[in-house]
Amino acid sequence: MKIYLAGPDVFLPDAIEIGRRKADICAAHGQSGLYPLDNKIDLTAPDASRQIFCGNEAMMDRADAIIANLTPFRGAGADPGTVYELGYMAGRGKLCLAYSNDPATYADRVSRFMNVTSEDGRLVDAQGLTVEDFGLVDNLMMIHAVELHGCPLVTPAEMPIDVWHDLSAFEACVRMAAARVSQ
Amino acid sequence: MKIYLAGPDVFLPDAIEIGRRKADICAAHGQSGLYPLDNKIDLTAPDASRQIFCGNEAMMDRADAIIANLTPFRGAGADPGTVYELGYMAGRGKLCLAYSNDPATYADRVSRFMNVTSEDGRLVDAQGLTVEDFGLVDNLMMIHAVELHGCPLVTPAEMPIDVWHDLSAFEACVRMAAARVSQ
Repeated sequence: MKIYLAGPDVFLPDAIEIGRRKADICAAHGQSGLYPLDNKIDLTAPDASRQIFCGNEAMMDRADAIIANLTPFRGAGADPGTVYELGYMAGRGKLCLAYSNDPATYADRVSRFMNVTSEDGRLVDAQGLTVEDFGLVDNLMMIHAVELHGCPLVTPAEMPIDVWHDLSAFEACVRMAAARVSQ
Repeated sequence: MKIYLAGPDVFLPDAIEIGRRKADICAAHGQSGLYPLDNKIDLTAPDASRQIFCGNEAMMDRADAIIANLTPFRGAGADPGTVYELGYMAGRGKLCLAYSNDPATYADRVSRFMNVTSEDGRLVDAQGLTVEDFGLVDNLMMIHAVELHGCPLVTPAEMPIDVWHDLSAFEACVRMAAARVSQ
């Protein structure tokens, strides 16, 4: 199947190389990986960002499945751009898979970034906003989206030393996608 | 039309009240607001988070449109749970509207949270990851999603004093939804 490879990987210094490695892993399991940076975009064009959006959307429409990298990005939660794509694919009825290389719960992770206190039985952050506390790795919408539109979120037993380049959890998702094809 | 009211508003201490205010604004413009907290959930049930997901998804499936509150939440970008819902509604072909009460560009906002430097013509954060720098208010996927699946993102000229309770930008979205109905 054709698998859209979503993630903040595109923001890495070696974004092209990580995309190639992911596509190679897909190929090794008989699947085809579609990586956003495979789209040819003129980054000097005034509408470059719109071209990227349209290229990504067309690529998602061609794909049968998504593997989203939900590893926390620039804060306590997943990259919103990636999460948008996961939602889009769920809405399109495609197979939804995802992994996060940080197995901590969302509530524990928020407390690394700011003071979290307990008020009237709910956790609240420094602004007084509720911190989701269901023992899940991230916001319940993404966690149950993959559970109910694909397979449960894949996380490692321990956070790997290099969260952006360790592809073990990614490969576990590819294996699950391949198993679906052979069913 | 039935409008799904997405946003981190559900995490506010007065989450119920803000939902009521949003629904009242919808009604004043002849529209019907559907607010996630209108779903009755047993929060003591072991599968409470899954019940919330399923309730929200069913509510989105009933809705004709979404108005997503993309005001930055617990960091430089929008709430991923809200963004998931925006993606889902775009995937379902529904009318997509959104607002953010912080009109700053994403790149400027990231630099409030961490050191951002320029390397080889791209902005990078403290981890060496690229900071999107298209002059947009948030990740390009959300910004162009609303532009191309609904109406351009609504932002105020200046950030209101109370970003979580000022509903002017929200009401502008409701007006645009109402205008679509009357077309």
